[in-house]
Amino acid sequence: MESNADIESEGGGEKMSRNGSIMEDGGDSMMIREPLLLKSRVNTTSQIAIVGANVCPIESLDYEILENDLFKQDWRSRKKVQIFQYVFMKWTLVLLIGLSTGLVAFFNNIAVENIAGFKLLLTGNLMLKQKYYQAFAALAGCNVVLATCAAVLCAYIAPAAAGSGIPEVKAYLNGVDAHSILAPSTLFVKIFGSIFGVAAGFVVGKEGPMVHTGACIANLLGQGGSRKYHLTWNWLKYFKNDRDRRDLITCGAAAGVAAAFRAPVGGVLFALEEAASWWRSALLWRTFFTTAVVAVVLKSLIEYCKNETCGLFGEGGLIMFDINNAVPSYNTIDLLAIILLGVIGGIFGSIYNYLVDKVLRTYSIINERGPSFRVLLVIIISVLTSCCAYGVPWLAKCIPCPDNIKEECPTKGRTGSYKSFQCPDGHYNDLASLLLTTNDDAIRSLFSSLNVNEFRISSLVFFFFAMYFLGIITYGIAIPSGLFIPVILAGASYGRLVGRLLHPIANLDAGLFALLGAASFLGGTMRMTVSLCVILLELTNNLLMLPLMMLVLLISKTVADCFNKGVYDQIVIMKGLPFLEAHAEPYMRHLVAGDVVSGPLITFSGVEKVSNVLHSLRMTSHNGFPVIDEPPITDAPELCGLVLRSHLLVLLKGKIFTEHRRLSGAQTLRGTMHLILQRLVLGKG
Amino acid sequence: MESNADIESEGGGEKMSRNGSIMEDGGDSMMIREPLLLKSRVNTTSQIAIVGANVCPIESLDYEILENDLFKQDWRSRKKVQIFQYVFMKWTLVLLIGLSTGLVAFFNNIAVENIAGFKLLLTGNLMLKQKYYQAFAALAGCNVVLATCAAVLCAYIAPAAAGSGIPEVKAYLNGVDAHSILAPSTLFVKIFGSIFGVAAGFVVGKEGPMVHTGACIANLLGQGGSRKYHLTWNWLKYFKNDRDRRDLITCGAAAGVAAAFRAPVGGVLFALEEAASWWRSALLWRTFFTTAVVAVVLKSLIEYCKNETCGLFGEGGLIMFDINNAVPSYNTIDLLAIILLGVIGGIFGSIYNYLVDKVLRTYSIINERGPSFRVLLVIIISVLTSCCAYGVPWLAKCIPCPDNIKEECPTKGRTGSYKSFQCPDGHYNDLASLLLTTNDDAIRSLFSSLNVNEFRISSLVFFFFAMYFLGIITYGIAIPSGLFIPVILAGASYGRLVGRLLHPIANLDAGLFALLGAASFLGGTMRMTVSLCVILLELTNNLLMLPLMMLVLLISKTVADCFNKGVYDQIVIMKGLPFLEAHAEPYMRHLVAGDVVSGPLITFSGVEKVSNVLHSLRMTSHNGFPVIDEPPITDAPELCGLVLRSHLLVLLKGKIFTEHRRLSGAQTLRGTMHLILQRLVLGKG
Repeated sequence: MESNADIESEGGGEKMSRNGSIMEDGGDSMMIREPLLLKSRVNTTSQIAIVGANVCPIESLDYEILENDLFKQDWRSRKKVQIFQYVFMKWTLVLLIGLSTGLVAFFNNIAVENIAGFKLLLTGNLMLKQKYYQAFAALAGCNVVLATCAAVLCAYIAPAAAGSGIPEVKAYLNGVDAHSILAPSTLFVKIFGSIFGVAAGFVVGKEGPMVHTGACIANLLGQGGSRKYHLTWNWLKYFKNDRDRRDLITCGAAAGVAAAFRAPVGGVLFALEEAASWWRSALLWRTFFTTAVVAVVLKSLIEYCKNETCGLFGEGGLIMFDINNAVPSYNTIDLLAIILLGVIGGIFGSIYNYLVDKVLRTYSIINERGPSFRVLLVIIISVLTSCCAYGVPWLAKCIPCPDNIKEECPTKGRTGSYKSFQCPDGHYNDLASLLLTTNDDAIRSLFSSLNVNEFRISSLVFFFFAMYFLGIITYGIAIPSGLFIPVILAGASYGRLVGRLLHPIANLDAGLFALLGAASFLGGTMRMTVSLCVILLELTNNLLMLPLMMLVLLISKTVADCFNKGVYDQIVIMKGLPFLEAHAEPYMRHLVAGDVVSGPLITFSGVEKVSNVLHSLRMTSHNGFPVIDEPPITDAPELCGLVLRSHLLVLLKGKIFTEHRRLSGAQTLRGTMHLILQRLVLGKG
Repeated sequence: MESNADIESEGGGEKMSRNGSIMEDGGDSMMIREPLLLKSRVNTTSQIAIVGANVCPIESLDYEILENDLFKQDWRSRKKVQIFQYVFMKWTLVLLIGLSTGLVAFFNNIAVENIAGFKLLLTGNLMLKQKYYQAFAALAGCNVVLATCAAVLCAYIAPAAAGSGIPEVKAYLNGVDAHSILAPSTLFVKIFGSIFGVAAGFVVGKEGPMVHTGACIANLLGQGGSRKYHLTWNWLKYFKNDRDRRDLITCGAAAGVAAAFRAPVGGVLFALEEAASWWRSALLWRTFFTTAVVAVVLKSLIEYCKNETCGLFGEGGLIMFDINNAVPSYNTIDLLAIILLGVIGGIFGSIYNYLVDKVLRTYSIINERGPSFRVLLVIIISVLTSCCAYGVPWLAKCIPCPDNIKEECPTKGRTGSYKSFQCPDGHYNDLASLLLTTNDDAIRSLFSSLNVNEFRISSLVFFFFAMYFLGIITYGIAIPSGLFIPVILAGASYGRLVGRLLHPIANLDAGLFALLGAASFLGGTMRMTVSLCVILLELTNNLLMLPLMMLVLLISKTVADCFNKGVYDQIVIMKGLPFLEAHAEPYMRHLVAGDVVSGPLITFSGVEKVSNVLHSLRMTSHNGFPVIDEPPITDAPELCGLVLRSHLLVLLKGKIFTEHRRLSGAQTLRGTMHLILQRLVLGKG
């Protein structure tokens, strides 16, 4: 069956395609179109999700039943070849997802390093020649051009590619399939927008976009290319159902994390902790395979690039911030400082979330005015960022180069922690070393344990505030923007500050304090625990820090949870995605159905006339109908459950009525409709 | 309410205690005893689990509903103090579980190291004086005495403490509460039996028992001590329900893994991957907290012991096998060797599982004859192990000490990899270095990268076969015996063998091959992926091995899964614990209810007379009854679901009947019973 609906064209189409595939497997009713299925749906901003309301096409929870039905009917009659085909293809798909995500991540790394490196070299050379205005012009010019590219892509081609993408993927995996979240155009913009955005020097990360990219790749491969662009394969028909698609996208999200942080185990845990609600052990196994593939691909490609074959990219191994091998030993003062860090992280994190939320709401007013306004906003923020990156270092005094270091000082090349900026020979500007470099290099400098006095206290304070507020005002503009890197930067700077202040009496070195600071701020904003812990471990390869890191994360999450929700949850709420938590909010205990439904209420009784059902389907645009038994069948009106439009269509198409229990001549078709409704209700109970 | 049932005395009691606590919260019906609830149940060996059959008291799945009911009715009327009390106590309990598990693990470590160390020193000194027979007598004597202690404890006090304990904990967390699995006596025997067993030189680990110990501690704390020994606290009444108990025991199991391997993240993942079916994000968070506490406790205690204040225990940090810091770089030959290792691991693993199963079945015949037979079996295996440990090293030729090593050779003290055994000065016996030492030290030697030629090929072959077969015949005797250590030992030996053979052409060193071998064999027997990976990482602190480790685990698990199931699953089946997999086996598709029920079939219809219900409850010992609607209510007999004995008792006690819909004078109490049955069925749908 060739469904005329395209998955990325419309939410309703997705539903239809799914039903289409069921029909296909179901047998002879496959030729019937769904004339009563809604084709377009509007999005509202209500947070309360209702299965069947016309908010978003929420996936039905019936995939288990449907799959079981499928198996019962068809499995035994199918040839073994088909079963083998299914299993083999699923693994092939998972392998392909891992491979592609690894390749995309690697391409992203190389592109960012080369573009940003070129820009920084240019600026640095002009600075060396003391052409200060030209240097600023070069920096700001490059930034604005790159930012404009990212913004144009994002605003005109795929608005859904803006932002982190993690909230959207999370929402998708929890049953909310919002408009074009995983479309190929989104994928395209996410990849290139992220490269331009990060290279433009914004305080954004590539981690969130990489997760989204992984999910998009999984979606694209899972449906065998896009129907819109005539890139589809028939042999992928088995995967055109909610369950397989969700599995694949979970793998894709895990692969994204694994690729972004080069953290395969962290990827699995992220998918588990943050993303997926429907978790099965088979999924763990498959996700693990995907991230292993990503790790192997990345490892091989990094090996390949060791000999400067990839331009400016070439350093670094599989572990991104493997720069601090200090063995942590700590005394009571250290422990107190760590607890303090946890509390600070919690407070700063919740304030950060609060401010991000406010800024996002402001930006969404601007963004709604049209694509040109979005691009303008991006350009303004880009100029602001450039001013900040170029202007703030002037506040720092020049520091004489230390004698006892191996690194060259001041730095000659692009990377390195001792940028000379405006300073005379033999001196370096510590703020410039943090600001006029890539975000990854800045993190490396902060985590480093080589020179505890590398950064002055005032510089760390300036840098913290710059990162904190730039991070807040940058998220929400129309570029793909991850939150991890800004948060790590801000956290590491206050962590290093604490370490610097306590240096005379503390045992832990300043680099480890920076790591703990990053952990505390991440815990305070993202509110993840196990996956963050593993990701940070895999980022820094310092397993001995584990107990301290767990402590910091526990404290910061607990403190921050007193004030508000995690930043991804806030974004999900703000975007109006009807995300249902695993546990009900307290206020929901007082809600009645009337609070959440829209339009006139159409109910069916457990036994219903087909003509009534047809009439209701034609007259309303509701996606679900409560089934209520009323007296005299029961002693009080009783809600049996909810029947979805799509279920009713299946029944109607299959003509699954009975004439068995006619109570009067007019009510011919009631009996079996009753049974089926009951069965459906039971299945969702 | 003081329930007269004790949780550890009897399965039925556990069910009753749960119902008791519900009643307690429910209100005024708390004084009613359950005369119809069965007090004793027999265990069968059928693998097919039926809720309600008289196999094992399987926990009902209704805790969500019950808790919701509880909340709806009581939550608003309760004082805020009580809510705070609940939350505070849960965290306190979790903290206590972490603390106690950490302390117990540490006590275990110190005891084992001191007892085994004393034994090995004694034997070593006698060997140095060339008193070979006396040395053997000392070794075998110590071993037999220790083994007898362990066996007597295990056979006479708590037979449930034999074996690993992981299958039982897994079964418990998946709803099967077998007899006295988590009783205080089991805890006691598990702690001391494990110490004696490991110290007795058996090829057993302390990891499985530690997981079981953690679960027992959690159970003990969760119910506020044992009722049997009058050690209970009233303020723990909130936790006397299935859900909280399961949560706590999950935390306990995670704490056990964390304590055994000093691997906090591995503990969380183990609990997630292997143990718990009912996983919620709150549980992740709580488990993480528990294992963090364990890590901090262990870290502090190990710091404390650095100055030889703990006898022979004193070396080692938080990472147990942190002995190989070689940076893995590999070529094509290495990769092929690694794939080969994975395949070997899968094949050896599945054969291992097969043989363990056969041996277990043989042993269970012996064990059933009575406690004295069990002790005898333990003594026989102990003598066999001693013969092996003392006899096999005579097969090895003396090797001249290498010149370029820092370690002393031959070893003077207790630990060290160069035991002289029968060799003249300046020589060492490599097999003795592996066999006449603690299992941990043997693993350390195998993983070590210091001297690639330390072990000869023939010695590694002998050692592999010794460990492989001793491991198989040791599991199943009446001592607490973990499977991890034997599997790691055997795997590491063939891994090192491959590394040794490929040394001239491979890039990876032999120690890393040993690690990969251990991973492959673990994957082939346990069939875990993510948690094993993380545990091995935390054991060895070599993050760069991650991609290779993932590869090996994937291959070995895939290969082994072609032949049979994981070893824990096999043990669960063999013990007759009615464990239900997340997915149905193919043959179950053809099962009908009649295949699994016992006794005469008693069914209720959706609408049932109270007198019928009462009569059936009195006459049968069934724990559940199918509810079937028959014509004329439906057009064909239709199974509505299953109602549990305990549910019926709740209804009967609450007198929740109605007289609304009397069809005849005799059928007075039918109406509401119908509704309630429907509701219960719905809730479990």
